[in-house]
Amino acid sequence: MSLNTFGHLFRVTTWGESHGPAIGCTVDGCPPGIKLSEADLQPWLDRRKPGTSKFTTQRQEADQVRILSGVFEGVTTGTPIQLMIENTDQRSKDYSNIAQAFRPGHADITYHQKYGVRDYRGGGRSSARETASRVAAGGVARAVLASLAPGLKITGYMVQMGVHAIDRARFEAAVIEGNPFWCPDAAAVTVWADYLDGLRLAHNSVGAVIEVTASGVPAGLGAPLYGKLDSDLASAMMSINAVKGVEIGDGFAAASLTGVENADEIRMGAAGPEFLSNHAGGILGGISSGQPVVVRFAVKPTSSILTPRATIDGTGAEIDLVTKGRHDPCVGIRAVPVGEAMMACVLADHILLDRGQTGGVRGQIG
Amino acid sequence: MSLNTFGHLFRVTTWGESHGPAIGCTVDGCPPGIKLSEADLQPWLDRRKPGTSKFTTQRQEADQVRILSGVFEGVTTGTPIQLMIENTDQRSKDYSNIAQAFRPGHADITYHQKYGVRDYRGGGRSSARETASRVAAGGVARAVLASLAPGLKITGYMVQMGVHAIDRARFEAAVIEGNPFWCPDAAAVTVWADYLDGLRLAHNSVGAVIEVTASGVPAGLGAPLYGKLDSDLASAMMSINAVKGVEIGDGFAAASLTGVENADEIRMGAAGPEFLSNHAGGILGGISSGQPVVVRFAVKPTSSILTPRATIDGTGAEIDLVTKGRHDPCVGIRAVPVGEAMMACVLADHILLDRGQTGGVRGQIG
Amino acid sequence: MSLNTFGHLFRVTTWGESHGPAIGCTVDGCPPGIKLSEADLQPWLDRRKPGTSKFTTQRQEADQVRILSGVFEGVTTGTPIQLMIENTDQRSKDYSNIAQAFRPGHADITYHQKYGVRDYRGGGRSSARETASRVAAGGVARAVLASLAPGLKITGYMVQMGVHAIDRARFEAAVIEGNPFWCPDAAAVTVWADYLDGLRLAHNSVGAVIEVTASGVPAGLGAPLYGKLDSDLASAMMSINAVKGVEIGDGFAAASLTGVENADEIRMGAAGPEFLSNHAGGILGGISSGQPVVVRFAVKPTSSILTPRATIDGTGAEIDLVTKGRHDPCVGIRAVPVGEAMMACVLADHILLDRGQTGGVRGQIG
Amino acid sequence: MSLNTFGHLFRVTTWGESHGPAIGCTVDGCPPGIKLSEADLQPWLDRRKPGTSKFTTQRQEADQVRILSGVFEGVTTGTPIQLMIENTDQRSKDYSNIAQAFRPGHADITYHQKYGVRDYRGGGRSSARETASRVAAGGVARAVLASLAPGLKITGYMVQMGVHAIDRARFEAAVIEGNPFWCPDAAAVTVWADYLDGLRLAHNSVGAVIEVTASGVPAGLGAPLYGKLDSDLASAMMSINAVKGVEIGDGFAAASLTGVENADEIRMGAAGPEFLSNHAGGILGGISSGQPVVVRFAVKPTSSILTPRATIDGTGAEIDLVTKGRHDPCVGIRAVPVGEAMMACVLADHILLDRGQTGGVRGQIG
Repeated sequence: MSLNTFGHLFRVTTWGESHGPAIGCTVDGCPPGIKLSEADLQPWLDRRKPGTSKFTTQRQEADQVRILSGVFEGVTTGTPIQLMIENTDQRSKDYSNIAQAFRPGHADITYHQKYGVRDYRGGGRSSARETASRVAAGGVARAVLASLAPGLKITGYMVQMGVHAIDRARFEAAVIEGNPFWCPDAAAVTVWADYLDGLRLAHNSVGAVIEVTASGVPAGLGAPLYGKLDSDLASAMMSINAVKGVEIGDGFAAASLTGVENADEIRMGAAGPEFLSNHAGGILGGISSGQPVVVRFAVKPTSSILTPRATIDGTGAEIDLVTKGRHDPCVGIRAVPVGEAMMACVLADHILLDRGQTGGVRGQIG
Repeated sequence: MSLNTFGHLFRVTTWGESHGPAIGCTVDGCPPGIKLSEADLQPWLDRRKPGTSKFTTQRQEADQVRILSGVFEGVTTGTPIQLMIENTDQRSKDYSNIAQAFRPGHADITYHQKYGVRDYRGGGRSSARETASRVAAGGVARAVLASLAPGLKITGYMVQMGVHAIDRARFEAAVIEGNPFWCPDAAAVTVWADYLDGLRLAHNSVGAVIEVTASGVPAGLGAPLYGKLDSDLASAMMSINAVKGVEIGDGFAAASLTGVENADEIRMGAAGPEFLSNHAGGILGGISSGQPVVVRFAVKPTSSILTPRATIDGTGAEIDLVTKGRHDPCVGIRAVPVGEAMMACVLADHILLDRGQTGGVRGQIG
Repeated sequence: MSLNTFGHLFRVTTWGESHGPAIGCTVDGCPPGIKLSEADLQPWLDRRKPGTSKFTTQRQEADQVRILSGVFEGVTTGTPIQLMIENTDQRSKDYSNIAQAFRPGHADITYHQKYGVRDYRGGGRSSARETASRVAAGGVARAVLASLAPGLKITGYMVQMGVHAIDRARFEAAVIEGNPFWCPDAAAVTVWADYLDGLRLAHNSVGAVIEVTASGVPAGLGAPLYGKLDSDLASAMMSINAVKGVEIGDGFAAASLTGVENADEIRMGAAGPEFLSNHAGGILGGISSGQPVVVRFAVKPTSSILTPRATIDGTGAEIDLVTKGRHDPCVGIRAVPVGEAMMACVLADHILLDRGQTGGVRGQIG
Repeated sequence: MSLNTFGHLFRVTTWGESHGPAIGCTVDGCPPGIKLSEADLQPWLDRRKPGTSKFTTQRQEADQVRILSGVFEGVTTGTPIQLMIENTDQRSKDYSNIAQAFRPGHADITYHQKYGVRDYRGGGRSSARETASRVAAGGVARAVLASLAPGLKITGYMVQMGVHAIDRARFEAAVIEGNPFWCPDAAAVTVWADYLDGLRLAHNSVGAVIEVTASGVPAGLGAPLYGKLDSDLASAMMSINAVKGVEIGDGFAAASLTGVENADEIRMGAAGPEFLSNHAGGILGGISSGQPVVVRFAVKPTSSILTPRATIDGTGAEIDLVTKGRHDPCVGIRAVPVGEAMMACVLADHILLDRGQTGGVRGQIG
């Protein structure tokens, strides 16, 4: 990770602001010979796209991704893949009132403090719009994973909205794609819809917790001690806008467990070691164990709200600020496909990194 | 972060195994002209040292740090600083029963899967012993911070042991250094001592939550979007042995907040902007705001316990394993100085990184 | 340097192929508040542009650079600067005969060996067209240098074409911009023009040596031992298409000198140390001394020529290949602005890197 | 490359000063399961060791290398390998006269300018003594190459001392190891011995040109455009003390060639493509072609000489300086094993990097 680049070998560099002409990213280090087209990437972008329900910002963006390099005759060439998404609905005037003010809870003030200058239109570089580039890069990562780890499957969903958590007993994977919240608990969907409607009408917003699971991850991924798989996932998820916490497996709940409870006991199965539980979330010592990799992250409530909040402007004058514009009442919703994309990028990167050092050969057991 | 190195400009590369002749690290990129001696580093190592109470491993290590390079006539020269700590109490026989077995919850099996070979003595590279190197590097980082951010102060403490959390209303900073748990709540100390004694005698162990706070952090540190201060802290803390979760400010609790509640409102103070609350934990958009930086991380219970657990050995045979040896019943205790060290390294690194790009000049307000 | 990125803090990632829709680069880590517009960059691109004389390829490219991000209201914001140049004259049919054949002396065969697939149109990624992105990035670097090292001046020129070297006694800086070869020796211009005309009509091509000098470089730039200023310059220049050698100061001629001759003796001038000679080319121990930094690099002859050469095709069949198309008879000519751009990028990067570690404060003498 | 680390995946971080207690390096990213012992490394260090003939410095150093980590039961574990060499003959008093003076042609002044402070004993960090660490790391790289590219062979030798170049017609590989200059031309050995004796007695020194060849290099190594194999070799060789120029294949001579002459024509051999010449030095477009990789570098004369040279001291006073002490009259001699080591490290690194991205699978021909 370095400024606007992440990844060791599968490296993604993103660029662009919310209201500039375009945003995009360069994916460098992609293996050659992987089948890839714009049609492979677009579905992932469509999942993250704003304006798909009343629960997301009403900004209208086609989010049409173009591949400008690195793909020839339908396959990757091993050279940098440039992905560009044009901004089409940049109503800058919506943001005029915040040009000189610092929204509480927002990066406005820290960008000003650090850089002395900022593109204030729609949050500029700090806008969640940048995550479209991550999702596009995630699409490339998924193509790599489909080639190098065919059984691998990534699933993201929301497990908590505000004070309302799902009931794990009602978890149904099939429910996830059928509601606007990526919620795996059908009963929670109704509760969340009412809850969020109420908040939205009250000119308020709310936080959420997202879980992303990857099954079929090969054992052996992760480069301890400072390129651990969990370190890299923590960094990747924490880099998403508004994320304030990341946990792996039991996460913070593991602090309350005893060693006897927390031990994922091991038995020998037909295809190799089998674990009797997965408190570890699929990662031990920073290396994947072959169990599902489970990551959760907390998203704070959108800071741009229609309720006035006390703040200052660039002259130091104290004001009350109402943030007009088109904002997500629960930005966690659109963070689901972003979390999936980051998972895909980190796993693709670690497959390449592991293959580089070890050749991808696994130590035998039995 | 890359394999065994972390940091952008202030870069730390650690090496060594639990039962090899020595462990250590190279600190590269340190500014020149900083006063530094072994006597400046030793106190930090003494805080992390094993065997200081009955609540930590009884392994006896002097943990004497030597500076082998990079310091001349009492000041840093800007060249790599090599810090070496000899291992003196490596009773390898203690670990003979786990040479061929995989401890549940431990990195034994994943190191085997990844590398096909491992130094099984005392956990080898995956041992918490490695964290002594981090603490030594943290000592160098503190010297840098003392020079470049004189008012900056880092404080680590334990806020939860197993099921017992501190009462924030009883928080007293002065209490922290006076008990073996770095606990800021005097009443909790007694509870924890009894609790941990019981677990230890029952051949069990337990997890913990650590909080590390840095006050006096200059505004403007952090390199969005992928070298964000919070991303780097998440990565740094998650790379510590046994850590399963990291959060900044309100962290996971922020998911339950509304935007109205979560907004840290801003007023103009005599010395610049002042925030009326610190839900953000001192970081907005990946950049420090000048408020205290607050990080918490969850440590799972020690996996090496005297209670038998079901597992397999290298031949795939199913066995019940008791891990003899000298282990910490709550490895979270010794993680406190490690968390402080990682905070120091990340902040020193970001001060240099920010100075490189922006010259360390801050945007004016008012 | 890493795959398609170079630089430590001022990092340039280039992307794009000769005959794709566009090429470009991301400049990350640029200081904020630097005045920058497309009009500042275009003149540098115009210098490198093909088709400006009969001595360069007749491909017609406007090489119009667009800034897509990182600049707001005329100044850099500290966020990634995306520079895009559309390809407008991609006559792919010109290259049809080499789609399946490997041009001798060209990267065709090694790209095939490494990646198994390549964009054969106009050399694809290995085309010198990519250097337009470097020149654009160099324009940004020059803006940074103008701000942080105002007296710094970079001058590139050709000192040898084929067997004809310039006469140093006739060196006139004013001559450089007035001829199509960036030649500082007016007498050599005529010789070179005739020589190159002859080679071109004979369906041949020829090599060259370029020198790039930077005066006004602050002392203290360079991060020994593996981020030395000369190491980074060597890497930067060697990465330019067709470059086969790099030297600093006296370079290979230094091998013939004795220690007595080679010592650049030092006297004390009004403004600090003054050197009586510059065998070192402005760099000692990898660090700039304040003297002009002098780099030379050798460019091999264009490998795409109209004279038939023995080679094989993808099936392994032995063929004689004539490379039709629009090629530079002396690709070294257009390498001059590219070498200048790489010098600018490396120096801007090292100013930031040095400022990060040392604060840019210099050790006093006297 | 970054400060004191080089390599992408096979990463070497060196530390230590000439007259500190020890020097050494961390080799990170080494594949696991490679047979390695101190006895495998020592012979390479013995080749570089000072004091082996009257033509090298008379400093006496055992240069005994110790492996402190990363190797267990005779094989690498995939964790960082720490190599330490104690300094035993640090007669600091020899250097007392240069503590406050800047030797012309030496890094003394630039280290002072950059860092404001330096370890002046024996050149400190800028001493050629640091290259012992590179040679140790090179020993590890050779073990990796022996495992992953069994036919690969690296040979270094001196092709020019001062004004005396070898006669290529008399090149005999068998001669190289039998003389103190690693000279492949038996007739030149006598000339060089007399020449160097004369210079040494005249209190002078002289430069040299070294060539390093690697045969059996697999095709496909190199990560264009900025991790090109030749860029990385240029950077690696230029980072060696006193090196002022690097060239690949025909290098600067290629500037005088025409395209017809320079084309390495290709025919189809029994085992794949065969080149009829090797002007390219085994690298095309930054990627190895399967031909021998040929690198040359120029070493300037030792700047520490017994002949007085005009310079200044730290107060700015103008003085005449004689550098007493034990110096190499031709430091190029001992640069031969160093150049070999850098070649080994770069090739090992690129084998891992290529394997990471492409899986090490080669595009078929025929």
